[in-house]
Amino acid sequence: MPRYALQVEYDGAPFSGWQRQKTHASVQGAIEDALARLEPRAHTIAAAGRTDAGVHAMAQVAHCDMTRNWTPFRLSEALNYHLKPLPVAIVNCVAVDDDFHARFSALERQYLFRILCRRAPVTHQRGFVWQIKNRLDIAAMQNAADRLLGEHDFTTFRSTICQAKTPVKTLDRLTVSEVETPHGIEVHFDARSFLHNQVRSFVGTLERVGSGSLSPQDVQDALDARDRAACGPVCPPHGLYLAGVTYPKPPFA
Amino acid sequence: MPRYALQVEYDGAPFSGWQRQKTHASVQGAIEDALARLEPRAHTIAAAGRTDAGVHAMAQVAHCDMTRNWTPFRLSEALNYHLKPLPVAIVNCVAVDDDFHARFSALERQYLFRILCRRAPVTHQRGFVWQIKNRLDIAAMQNAADRLLGEHDFTTFRSTICQAKTPVKTLDRLTVSEVETPHGIEVHFDARSFLHNQVRSFVGTLERVGSGSLSPQDVQDALDARDRAACGPVCPPHGLYLAGVTYPKPPFA
Repeated sequence: MPRYALQVEYDGAPFSGWQRQKTHASVQGAIEDALARLEPRAHTIAAAGRTDAGVHAMAQVAHCDMTRNWTPFRLSEALNYHLKPLPVAIVNCVAVDDDFHARFSALERQYLFRILCRRAPVTHQRGFVWQIKNRLDIAAMQNAADRLLGEHDFTTFRSTICQAKTPVKTLDRLTVSEVETPHGIEVHFDARSFLHNQVRSFVGTLERVGSGSLSPQDVQDALDARDRAACGPVCPPHGLYLAGVTYPKPPFA
Repeated sequence: MPRYALQVEYDGAPFSGWQRQKTHASVQGAIEDALARLEPRAHTIAAAGRTDAGVHAMAQVAHCDMTRNWTPFRLSEALNYHLKPLPVAIVNCVAVDDDFHARFSALERQYLFRILCRRAPVTHQRGFVWQIKNRLDIAAMQNAADRLLGEHDFTTFRSTICQAKTPVKTLDRLTVSEVETPHGIEVHFDARSFLHNQVRSFVGTLERVGSGSLSPQDVQDALDARDRAACGPVCPPHGLYLAGVTYPKPPFA
């Protein structure tokens, strides 16, 4: 069966997350339903990141197996047609070899978290940034972030319902930077894979550092404690984006 | 009466424009209603740009006269409280001299128009960019734009209901540039003042140049014709932002 890689952008707000569920709208379900309009049968697609409820994607990667040979352009056009009016867009589509697997071939996932620090309510970016009403100390946040880099047992920053086999993960990048938008902060995370709620646990804890409630050393101690109770609050999902996925051979190059 | 300058950000979608109207929601009306919650009486505020229905603002400037002396922080907080849940935010508030007038003191208005060129539907920026399904030739658009710079009789690019005394205006800046966002284009316009529908007439015409339907010389000819019928289509409002206003003494510096 011809296999296609799909680069998918979505607004996570109306969905219970990526993963198909019986009773709630999901991004996977929406795309599988659109595929069933093209080739009527049950479809099951795999994706690089199973984003949580409310989490957005700029460049989620999924793959699907079709019976017919589709030109990638026609496949993406047809999927986008049937996805309307949902805020899900196939922004790229290519034919790939049978050994490409959106989830298992992925070498690294990149996540981005957007914060807007200001008192005035959000208007243009409503639902797309986490608003914090005070200024945050970016240098302190970066200092704390540096302690999370590399290989660690991240039990502290892992949801209790996380199904990963091990809490040991390697974080390749965690940068906290001011963006051009007035009072905006972007936090970038790169890793081969993440634990459930890991990014939102990091951001919730880093925000406490930026506000001055926690010190960078407190974050070090929390990490070392390997205790979920030592984690700061898990932040809301609507500032989080799956920003990219790296494969040995970039499918969309 | 103490006078305050307000820097206002809004999503134009739910409004019939800046200007107060009897039967439709307006940004001016929303702010005047919020002021009436603070000091119960009729309020009339003036603004630098009377944006059309659906047009956004990043940094509209208005001024209001109050009876009481308000600390600017408390005034903006109280206004934002009463503006909820409308997508209007007072992002800056300062006390100004009596001779400051948001409209008449303004030396220059800056407008920004955002275009997204791609086939896939818009998800994250829905309502905040004008989507064009083909790629646009930015160099050709800039070539055409250069012909509109400076002082001209802009009758071609003026709504027939425009109330300005003269169609002669001076355009100080018109730049067409690619932005980092994949396939995004930003068009910047600076002028002391604009005719009604001037920016959207420009963008609609420049899009025709980018698509190859018009040449830069056609735009020159259209300008020279001083004939509304020679204008390209007026583009939709939802990619347009009032991005800034310049005063002799920057009120929010």
